[in-house]
Amino acid sequence: MIIRPQQHWLALIFVWHGSVLSKVISRLLLNFLLSIAVILMLPWYSTLGIKLTVAPFSILGVAIAIFLGFRNNACYSRFVEARQLWGQLMIAARSLFREVKNTLPDDPRLGEFVCLQIAFAHSLRMTLRRLPQEKKLSVLLPAEHLQQVLSAHSPANRILLLMGEWLATRRRSGTLSDILFHSLNNRLNDMSAVQAGCERIANTPIPFAYTLILHRTVYIFCILLPFALVVDLHYMTPFISVLISYTFISLDALAEELEDPFGLENNDLPLDAICNAMEIDLRQMNDETDVPEKRLPDKNYQLT
Amino acid sequence: MIIRPQQHWLALIFVWHGSVLSKVISRLLLNFLLSIAVILMLPWYSTLGIKLTVAPFSILGVAIAIFLGFRNNACYSRFVEARQLWGQLMIAARSLFREVKNTLPDDPRLGEFVCLQIAFAHSLRMTLRRLPQEKKLSVLLPAEHLQQVLSAHSPANRILLLMGEWLATRRRSGTLSDILFHSLNNRLNDMSAVQAGCERIANTPIPFAYTLILHRTVYIFCILLPFALVVDLHYMTPFISVLISYTFISLDALAEELEDPFGLENNDLPLDAICNAMEIDLRQMNDETDVPEKRLPDKNYQLT
Amino acid sequence: MIIRPQQHWLALIFVWHGSVLSKVISRLLLNFLLSIAVILMLPWYSTLGIKLTVAPFSILGVAIAIFLGFRNNACYSRFVEARQLWGQLMIAARSLFREVKNTLPDDPRLGEFVCLQIAFAHSLRMTLRRLPQEKKLSVLLPAEHLQQVLSAHSPANRILLLMGEWLATRRRSGTLSDILFHSLNNRLNDMSAVQAGCERIANTPIPFAYTLILHRTVYIFCILLPFALVVDLHYMTPFISVLISYTFISLDALAEELEDPFGLENNDLPLDAICNAMEIDLRQMNDETDVPEKRLPDKNYQLT
Amino acid sequence: MIIRPQQHWLALIFVWHGSVLSKVISRLLLNFLLSIAVILMLPWYSTLGIKLTVAPFSILGVAIAIFLGFRNNACYSRFVEARQLWGQLMIAARSLFREVKNTLPDDPRLGEFVCLQIAFAHSLRMTLRRLPQEKKLSVLLPAEHLQQVLSAHSPANRILLLMGEWLATRRRSGTLSDILFHSLNNRLNDMSAVQAGCERIANTPIPFAYTLILHRTVYIFCILLPFALVVDLHYMTPFISVLISYTFISLDALAEELEDPFGLENNDLPLDAICNAMEIDLRQMNDETDVPEKRLPDKNYQLT
Amino acid sequence: MIIRPQQHWLALIFVWHGSVLSKVISRLLLNFLLSIAVILMLPWYSTLGIKLTVAPFSILGVAIAIFLGFRNNACYSRFVEARQLWGQLMIAARSLFREVKNTLPDDPRLGEFVCLQIAFAHSLRMTLRRLPQEKKLSVLLPAEHLQQVLSAHSPANRILLLMGEWLATRRRSGTLSDILFHSLNNRLNDMSAVQAGCERIANTPIPFAYTLILHRTVYIFCILLPFALVVDLHYMTPFISVLISYTFISLDALAEELEDPFGLENNDLPLDAICNAMEIDLRQMNDETDVPEKRLPDKNYQLT
Repeated sequence: MIIRPQQHWLALIFVWHGSVLSKVISRLLLNFLLSIAVILMLPWYSTLGIKLTVAPFSILGVAIAIFLGFRNNACYSRFVEARQLWGQLMIAARSLFREVKNTLPDDPRLGEFVCLQIAFAHSLRMTLRRLPQEKKLSVLLPAEHLQQVLSAHSPANRILLLMGEWLATRRRSGTLSDILFHSLNNRLNDMSAVQAGCERIANTPIPFAYTLILHRTVYIFCILLPFALVVDLHYMTPFISVLISYTFISLDALAEELEDPFGLENNDLPLDAICNAMEIDLRQMNDETDVPEKRLPDKNYQLT
Repeated sequence: MIIRPQQHWLALIFVWHGSVLSKVISRLLLNFLLSIAVILMLPWYSTLGIKLTVAPFSILGVAIAIFLGFRNNACYSRFVEARQLWGQLMIAARSLFREVKNTLPDDPRLGEFVCLQIAFAHSLRMTLRRLPQEKKLSVLLPAEHLQQVLSAHSPANRILLLMGEWLATRRRSGTLSDILFHSLNNRLNDMSAVQAGCERIANTPIPFAYTLILHRTVYIFCILLPFALVVDLHYMTPFISVLISYTFISLDALAEELEDPFGLENNDLPLDAICNAMEIDLRQMNDETDVPEKRLPDKNYQLT
Repeated sequence: MIIRPQQHWLALIFVWHGSVLSKVISRLLLNFLLSIAVILMLPWYSTLGIKLTVAPFSILGVAIAIFLGFRNNACYSRFVEARQLWGQLMIAARSLFREVKNTLPDDPRLGEFVCLQIAFAHSLRMTLRRLPQEKKLSVLLPAEHLQQVLSAHSPANRILLLMGEWLATRRRSGTLSDILFHSLNNRLNDMSAVQAGCERIANTPIPFAYTLILHRTVYIFCILLPFALVVDLHYMTPFISVLISYTFISLDALAEELEDPFGLENNDLPLDAICNAMEIDLRQMNDETDVPEKRLPDKNYQLT
Repeated sequence: MIIRPQQHWLALIFVWHGSVLSKVISRLLLNFLLSIAVILMLPWYSTLGIKLTVAPFSILGVAIAIFLGFRNNACYSRFVEARQLWGQLMIAARSLFREVKNTLPDDPRLGEFVCLQIAFAHSLRMTLRRLPQEKKLSVLLPAEHLQQVLSAHSPANRILLLMGEWLATRRRSGTLSDILFHSLNNRLNDMSAVQAGCERIANTPIPFAYTLILHRTVYIFCILLPFALVVDLHYMTPFISVLISYTFISLDALAEELEDPFGLENNDLPLDAICNAMEIDLRQMNDETDVPEKRLPDKNYQLT
Repeated sequence: MIIRPQQHWLALIFVWHGSVLSKVISRLLLNFLLSIAVILMLPWYSTLGIKLTVAPFSILGVAIAIFLGFRNNACYSRFVEARQLWGQLMIAARSLFREVKNTLPDDPRLGEFVCLQIAFAHSLRMTLRRLPQEKKLSVLLPAEHLQQVLSAHSPANRILLLMGEWLATRRRSGTLSDILFHSLNNRLNDMSAVQAGCERIANTPIPFAYTLILHRTVYIFCILLPFALVVDLHYMTPFISVLISYTFISLDALAEELEDPFGLENNDLPLDAICNAMEIDLRQMNDETDVPEKRLPDKNYQLT
């Protein structure tokens, strides 16, 4: 994700990094070349009786804009929901540890619980990004647990089971009453909700036919556009054609990027930074001294 | 549901499988033929004083696009809500079993409870898809329960009653305190909420008049369109008419498909895969060794 | 509500029952006749310098479509929320009785509680549809309760009070602990939420001025439309005018129908069927043998 | 709020009361006079080379319609949320008293608690409408409480504190267990949520710049419109100009009215009637005989 | 935030303060000057065959309006959600203190708890606005706590931990039962949810590419607009060009302002006033006499 400071409006027009322009520039170039070809061939093919006018493109343009707006909305909702889920993980993590610390202030193995919580966040992040988990988790989990977690279909879910086990041991030994165990369990359920929510977003794309219909219509529209514009605009055709194409094609490309908010592209969520912030907070709450450094955006204002 | 890897933008334009194109191709062909007929008959009927212009179609096209956008939104919301409900089932199932396992780690009949949970998911899936349930459930439930479940008006609801009974027995025998029984019961209520939510989506379509009004307007619009385009576009009429028709008709067809997200069409939810994932997770949490294989998309990227 | 099986796209264009066409056909006919009058009078009034063009109607048409889309959205939201509330009633009813049955399996008066639950649903339904309640409720409630319920300002709320009383008696006699009483009470609160939600939808229409402004603009637009179309379309004016009018007027009429989802019109909620399903489920959960038959759509696919 | 019975579509066009027409009629009249002036002056200023065409107004009209639709949506959401909050107050009030009555059926001071609940609703209503509270509250509260409530920054919040005190006294005396006290307290929290929600809507308008930008654009658009229409429409200019202006200006005016749903204008919420219904329900639940009369709409179908 | 009294519609058109006009006036002026340049240079460059027509700008204008509407919606949602979070903080703060006061009416250190609650709100506000916290918090917190809070990565979260500690001490000493401790803890969790929600909004802007694409398209559109208008409008070009540009550019600028609702710009949330109201309410509930004055809007109707 790109976190840019505010800039002058004029400077903003020329920003390159972080736009989807790098993705679509080749398609816009093709559109530009096609427009020139259309201008040159106009005398030839208009003698064949082939002509296009802007009016039907107006109908089509509005329809595509409305449907593209709808698809953008759907993709952006996924992005927002994904971010909210990670926000809820932050809430659950802090609340859970606050309750644990306040209820069992003298428990000698609190650090173990902190590690389980941190491991949950990292495991979820690495599952969503399809990264290997062993290296990171081996620092946080003891060997016996590590094996169970790595062999599970849903590693994060296994870590939740271990956290529940940690609490249940204390309930059985009498240091945790049923009511407080119930209360802490609700926080684990919140974390389970975050996990399943993220899995849902990661595994269920927007119905493929939406992507396909819009993609296809947008590109055919942009290909035919120069033919319709050339009669009125002549030499200006390439510029206007590319401008309109840029609007439609880049929004189509952005929607595609936002559809999977857990990736590593420019407009995806900074899961590394969120996990890092959670780790700092939890370790500080446990009054540990060995707290990791806060992650900051790189020189391109990019935070992963 | 189709889960496709990302593809080159140009290749995507020519994808056949998974689009709704297979459904609407015959209607687009009719539109193409009609357009040609319109071109040929133009000299004849324009002498009768019959003429159409694009301007009124512009008003109508925008209005239809707006209303079609609304209907797509409504149908997509149903799809999303249905997926969220199954996500909540995943949350409830994992949380319920985690709490049961942590609270009653030594109960000899935990496997029975796992089977009840799996049976609930499959029963709900088969009810929504109107499939016969006996074969699948007979593996998961003992004979006495099976009979009760199959004869019930809502089989899944009966399974919930059995799960409640399983927990209530333990409450009465004293191994489960009232507070933990209450906590576990809330998870059953969550599952009940999923069931009723799915039933609501399956049994209450979008008001029929919406479907009808839009369907009718879209098709009459597409039928009249060539008459309006032919004056300006002449030989290009069939191509532009089919392009505009494709945009409207295919979105109309997709909305219809999404309206019932529990079906078995290309853009419906992969309930088999979700039930399968739930079964794997629950059996692994109970440390069973006989865990089913994970389902993967077929060669057409289709997951049922 | 109309629950139609899927049909061929061509057949669907000619469906009569269930569309709002029956409501607006007279208005469309008027529009048709007006259009013919406009054609005939054209030579006369154009000599007076009266002329209209399509361009301003294009601005107005788009604006009306956008605002109509907004109003449709608002009305449809009411419909969806009303359906969700009845879905929540289903959830609460099943969950409540499951908890009661599991907690008090040997209570001799469970059947009484089932009747109270069924009475609640029917009383709410009959209040929303302004039907007399005495006949239906007298079967379900004993005489003393019946009197209290019928004389209350909110009969359904009185039934909730009686259900709470039923539970409180068991709490005072010690068969129900405070925690389980609290848990069951939450289900009653859920039912109270459904009741107040339905009352809200039934008693608070969409601000009248929305209905009025849109209604007025749509009709004046449709009345003036033939004057604008006639210059370009001449003999085709009546057909295009009716087509555009149909789109706007029928969506206006449908919004009106959906605004009150508890009525008995074609596109209203099937409250009878929902109450019936709830009754079947509850009686089956209590292992009663005298279960009512399931309601099915009539020959017009209509379910009330 | 206006609660009108359904009317014939033709009659509805001519309704005066309840539309925002009374508010905007003077502005429409100005628009009409301006249009006439524009027609008369046309020969003069067209010689100066001043001319406007409809095309740029088409772009502007669509943009304004879209943004106006957005603002209407935002204002209507506030209206709906406000109504939902009062619905939640109804739920909380009934549920709270039901629980209190069922738990403490023999408490001699139940009537006092009913009065506190009614006082809360009226106090909130009067705060939102900036009405003096002393007269109404003095009937419901004893002198000592009245003083505390009236001198508080948030009177309704002080009443909640008194209700909590009423319950806490019973907890300390042992007639209310901790768990039931906790349960009843949650209802008070629900009422606190309603209060803060209403305060939020009342104190935080839609960002002023939205109101300003749209207001300004709508009015400048309507002022310039006759200049653009006159070339094509000539004598018809005033009628079409007023029609388009009516659509935009009246929706702008309605949005303004809905933005503060707690006022006393035609389209605001009937808080008096809601408080009245709540009072009837609570007093009937407590089996009191002195129940106020139900409020009905006045002859203009207006309910305050 | 600007809280203006209602004004006459005509006066409203000329309001300066509070609009975003001050921000965009220089850009509109540039547009005006460019338009004049375009008029003057028209004879020259039209001989080069360069011409633009309004039609393609119509397509582009509608598309931009739709996408801008979408972005405004997204930014406004952030604003609304931020306000709701602070409303929830108000709810949680009042409810928490009411429960504490009712449960522990004689606790001698209630004032300390009030200070912790007030410190939480101020700390959150100052974190979101990146203000130094030491001065404000030193009045509210004892020295030992102050140090812990200021050195924490999330100061507000540390204050929550201290509040939990305050409650846990009373639980361990037996004045607070587990169930009431659990209930009060839930309020702390609500406050934790508010904190994480605000952090989410502050740290996760809308995907940068949206801002960039729309910004770029809007400005290029406005720069090219005069070229398209000049053929039809000639001397009127500058006025219409500025009017259309104003609509698009000012909505773009407002969206930017709303995107970060915690700032100190005209349309941002009045966090100072909200914290102030919370402090008054809490101190009054604790019957303190030293209550701060209520903050009022300044002479420009501005509340920070």
